[in-house]
Amino acid sequence: MPAPAEKTLADLTEGEVLAQIFPRLPHADTELLGPGDDAAVLSAADGRFVVTCDMMVQGPDFRLAWSTPHNLGWKAAATNLSDVAAMGARPTALVVAIAAPPSTPISVILGIADGLRDGCAALAPGCGVVGGDLSASDALTLSITAFGDLEGRPPVLRSGASVGDVVAHAGRLGDAGIGLGLLFRHGVDSDGVPSSVHADALKAQQRQFVDAQLAPEPPIHLGPVAALAGATAMLDVSDGLAIDAGRLARASRVGVNFDSAALGARPELALGGGEDHGLLATFPPDAALPAGFRRLGEVTDQAGVVLVDGRPHTQGGWDPYLGWDGAVG
Amino acid sequence: MPAPAEKTLADLTEGEVLAQIFPRLPHADTELLGPGDDAAVLSAADGRFVVTCDMMVQGPDFRLAWSTPHNLGWKAAATNLSDVAAMGARPTALVVAIAAPPSTPISVILGIADGLRDGCAALAPGCGVVGGDLSASDALTLSITAFGDLEGRPPVLRSGASVGDVVAHAGRLGDAGIGLGLLFRHGVDSDGVPSSVHADALKAQQRQFVDAQLAPEPPIHLGPVAALAGATAMLDVSDGLAIDAGRLARASRVGVNFDSAALGARPELALGGGEDHGLLATFPPDAALPAGFRRLGEVTDQAGVVLVDGRPHTQGGWDPYLGWDGAVG
Repeated sequence: MPAPAEKTLADLTEGEVLAQIFPRLPHADTELLGPGDDAAVLSAADGRFVVTCDMMVQGPDFRLAWSTPHNLGWKAAATNLSDVAAMGARPTALVVAIAAPPSTPISVILGIADGLRDGCAALAPGCGVVGGDLSASDALTLSITAFGDLEGRPPVLRSGASVGDVVAHAGRLGDAGIGLGLLFRHGVDSDGVPSSVHADALKAQQRQFVDAQLAPEPPIHLGPVAALAGATAMLDVSDGLAIDAGRLARASRVGVNFDSAALGARPELALGGGEDHGLLATFPPDAALPAGFRRLGEVTDQAGVVLVDGRPHTQGGWDPYLGWDGAVG
Repeated sequence: MPAPAEKTLADLTEGEVLAQIFPRLPHADTELLGPGDDAAVLSAADGRFVVTCDMMVQGPDFRLAWSTPHNLGWKAAATNLSDVAAMGARPTALVVAIAAPPSTPISVILGIADGLRDGCAALAPGCGVVGGDLSASDALTLSITAFGDLEGRPPVLRSGASVGDVVAHAGRLGDAGIGLGLLFRHGVDSDGVPSSVHADALKAQQRQFVDAQLAPEPPIHLGPVAALAGATAMLDVSDGLAIDAGRLARASRVGVNFDSAALGARPELALGGGEDHGLLATFPPDAALPAGFRRLGEVTDQAGVVLVDGRPHTQGGWDPYLGWDGAVG
């Protein structure tokens, strides 16, 4: 809770809020003109740029009882950087639009800015925030657009896998999903309402899984590494390994067969858990896998089919409308 | 209101919604890789690109009783294109994140897509939508990031005006503000609640002003034209001529003196009304003003001061937190 004297967004002009935010934001190496004019200008020496966007909304995407403002900024950076990396590109910059209730303490907005700064510094050094927008809304909402540099390489698409390719993965598998499950079970009070007290107790006991959900550390730097190593297809595992493998399989008109022995002690959790934001990639059979990637299986000729040990795998997944219980915690 | 049988977002998967949206979106001439992978890839032959973002939230930024979905898409495009144009750049592409309640009829989302398409086609041909995101939220929210091509020119900043420059403007002045005032006075029922019935009656009588507010047509093509004509400073008039002239004056460390005779029959409305999204620019004293620009005054040596006929001008303006009454119409 804010200290009684802390200012909220309603107490400050937009200019006053921005004056506090700007100094905390990370600088982008590609920034030619930063915040303060009608638009920013970024260099794109490659002659092309990669762009992706993702929105996080209080309720469906996060609960303030569980995520700190720093977590929100970090995760917003991480999930967008990961989409850039999955093209084989190096992340260069973000623009950030935030909508927040007027009653929001200024410390929440500054915490988000700090999380963006620390997430960029840890996961993609040289990537910075070059612009943004601040609006009012009943629901705290972060909308990030991220940019990347292909550094002269072709983008690594989902559609390039060939039969016989090795299927490999970098990053964690299932931990973020386990963390979310723990939060829904133990991060709530006796009425089932998300509770910061209960979540803090859980974090003390299960930090690995809760952090994987609230402040993921995807292997952003391995996106360009995979591209240089000859990755034929790649994508960011946001909705779960099985679902995202199915996307790669359909786009490439091939199949994927996972070796359950490579999926850890609990293959179902590795296959089903979303939001780890690791990189799923395919490599030619004779390619040396870059350090950080593990072989999980191979590409088959059964177009669009995901197998585990040669048997069909089916399971549900995350959908922004089907998955929302309507609660804003 | 939707027909009883119309599907809502809750009835469809994200993939099904996107499959209906994608064919309606305008294609960008600079698109090398469009929606469907982790990110899009755009060409930037200039070696730089311009980027800006703006978020529109139901309640503070629009009322569904007044704006059609087509209006929302159109205005979201227009306001972002205008920020790109104000740098002297040609708009090339947009990415669009939309958050909407699960109960939203699919026709609302498709109407927004059509408005984006028609706004781009009318205001910036060749500019298209290259990616996006769809989320759930209690408040309908549009977050747009727009890109532009400087075509080899330096960006036209707010900070380049010199004493003696001509102050000129392209676009409408005050009409959008008059339209908003009319909507607040006459677009509401007897309890003061925004009403589509009352707004429709108002539109039939005062279409010019209401359209200027709900579906503005800023002179996007004149951004690059002004740059080529030697504009020394430029910005998009979003918060009102006086406020935005003050921004230009402070950034350039000069003053602006408007000639009230150039401001039309109601100078106070021209100076105070926001959201017209015209272009305010300064040109060297000897430059020929490009067609579409009108002389409004001159640049003076009183740093940061906005004058009208040589007398100080002061007035309040729009702030996203101060200006919101909290109602979601």
